[in-house]
Amino acid sequence: MKRDRNEGIWDFENGMPPQDGGQDLILGLDGGTTSTVCICMPVFSFTDNSLPPDPPPVLAHAVAGCSNHNSVGETAAKETLERVMADALFKAGSTRSAVRAVCLAVSGVNHPTDQQRILSWLRAMFPNDVKCFVHNDAVAAMASGTMGKLHGCVLIAGTGTIAYGYTEDGREARASGAGPVLGDWGSGYGIAAMALTSVIRAYDGRGPQTMLTSRILHELELSSPDELIGWTYADPSWARIAALVPVVVSCAEAGDEVANGILLDAVQELASSIKAVVCRLGLCGEDGKGSCPLVMVGGVLQANKKWDIGKEVISCISKEFPGMLPIRPKVEPAVGAALLAWNVLKKQSQSGG
Amino acid sequence: MKRDRNEGIWDFENGMPPQDGGQDLILGLDGGTTSTVCICMPVFSFTDNSLPPDPPPVLAHAVAGCSNHNSVGETAAKETLERVMADALFKAGSTRSAVRAVCLAVSGVNHPTDQQRILSWLRAMFPNDVKCFVHNDAVAAMASGTMGKLHGCVLIAGTGTIAYGYTEDGREARASGAGPVLGDWGSGYGIAAMALTSVIRAYDGRGPQTMLTSRILHELELSSPDELIGWTYADPSWARIAALVPVVVSCAEAGDEVANGILLDAVQELASSIKAVVCRLGLCGEDGKGSCPLVMVGGVLQANKKWDIGKEVISCISKEFPGMLPIRPKVEPAVGAALLAWNVLKKQSQSGG
Repeated sequence: MKRDRNEGIWDFENGMPPQDGGQDLILGLDGGTTSTVCICMPVFSFTDNSLPPDPPPVLAHAVAGCSNHNSVGETAAKETLERVMADALFKAGSTRSAVRAVCLAVSGVNHPTDQQRILSWLRAMFPNDVKCFVHNDAVAAMASGTMGKLHGCVLIAGTGTIAYGYTEDGREARASGAGPVLGDWGSGYGIAAMALTSVIRAYDGRGPQTMLTSRILHELELSSPDELIGWTYADPSWARIAALVPVVVSCAEAGDEVANGILLDAVQELASSIKAVVCRLGLCGEDGKGSCPLVMVGGVLQANKKWDIGKEVISCISKEFPGMLPIRPKVEPAVGAALLAWNVLKKQSQSGG
Repeated sequence: MKRDRNEGIWDFENGMPPQDGGQDLILGLDGGTTSTVCICMPVFSFTDNSLPPDPPPVLAHAVAGCSNHNSVGETAAKETLERVMADALFKAGSTRSAVRAVCLAVSGVNHPTDQQRILSWLRAMFPNDVKCFVHNDAVAAMASGTMGKLHGCVLIAGTGTIAYGYTEDGREARASGAGPVLGDWGSGYGIAAMALTSVIRAYDGRGPQTMLTSRILHELELSSPDELIGWTYADPSWARIAALVPVVVSCAEAGDEVANGILLDAVQELASSIKAVVCRLGLCGEDGKGSCPLVMVGGVLQANKKWDIGKEVISCISKEFPGMLPIRPKVEPAVGAALLAWNVLKKQSQSGG
């Protein structure tokens, strides 16, 4: 095993009994912009062709901060990932020598060079025979809806939004997920920024009056739309702005036309991301009638209110692709990541690889 | 005179001869997000009712960095303002005792509380009888087109955009100028962000193909639209993104429909800001036919290319308000600020105040 630069993180392993013959483990990680989750799962049997246990057993669960290298820088991202894995193994009463596979799904992996770099971090942390996988966080979300099978389409709409599609033969495609500057409309940030813009436009006399004005000012404890300028300058974090989505939904439910228009636009944007990946990969076949899982995750899609953005997106997509099968995952994305690694191990075991 | 906290800045005054009986001065400041300019102007005669000399005499010109308190914080903004004024007075061979008025027009003054705070900084820096004026930077731009008269409408479109209107009886109105989060579409940032978004949409399969893709990637020395994500994350400064406007204009001139659409939208947005302030203040009279100056400044409006955004905005506005008189200022905004102060001194002198 290679030596680590952060020896302290793994010091706990020295006090552990030898793991030889113990339970083999898989680490599944979901690294987002707000937090990073690592779960530790046993490698359950490959002997039959059945699906993994439902729910899959989770031996340990650890949480840390942001591990998106774009947000916090490489050094901090790497240390966060290393610590959360050590924490999960420690909680599971095990060490790295028991690990068979690590599947890391982390936001900010947008390019093969990102993937290669993070993969090299992982390989330096673990023994050479550990299978390491690095993906975008969308992969974990997808796998959490399909119990580890990487096939279909996943739409994530929280603070940001991204759509990914995967074919059974290993091709993939992405749409959106490029951040607010590059137009992730339909995201929580996008919806809330449009609402704030509408308030300013109404105040300026450039747009219609809207209930959003009083509701948003009340929510933020401000007395005039003018003060929104200072409010956005004070802290332009996307999550802080995206937190206004419930206000927009409640205004739309109360009949506000401007808020309603913003949500309808968001539905079109989110649906267009799904359509783009479905078309590029031919996920619903040549006639568009084929069946295909559509995993939907993130705060924007989970509002079970009168105005249900997720439901409207499904309704919009189903017109064009009636075989799309919407799935709201029951397990967390980190479990999806671990199941994905388990599926790969299973295939390799069955093919004798 | 009050004692300064930054004594060092004004140390040069100790070596100056007494200014009693010397030339009275006005300081005019234009504080933007990229730089701050202070000019020193003599107080020329109030005896007749003529306009100020054209061009107005400038005794000294000093430049410093950003003085927008939203961008650099209050302490840094205040020190920048103090230093640039001291620098201008030093270059003019004079001291604060010769100053009759200071007119500071600085970006980021969006609320009366901003104005009051900056006014109190100024008053602490100068003798009690110095007239101090604090405005948004739009005021300096306006006055630079009207030789110090605060009447009409000014549209600024550089990295950001803002429109201000002023009536002869002292009312004013603003539109836009709220920053990118709050939808300053039509700004240089807004145009370029839309162009970047179009590149991503085309790449995703969510929007039409566009010449913007190859031109922008070439300009930024990137090889794939994917890399735009890292590029925007690396440094989200608005000016860096707004610098892509010439690429968008050249694509529109070459017939690219997407680029053309972005510029047409920008024209509508900029025109809507002007219309909003003209309507709120009744600047063109009840029938909209009255005459009114329209001062136009900023990089987005100054492109004398085949696709001339400023010309299109004027053409759009003139349909509704045929009496709008477009002005492209010949003096810099800091001179406008000084002329504004001169006009106030003149009025006070004529009314015996």
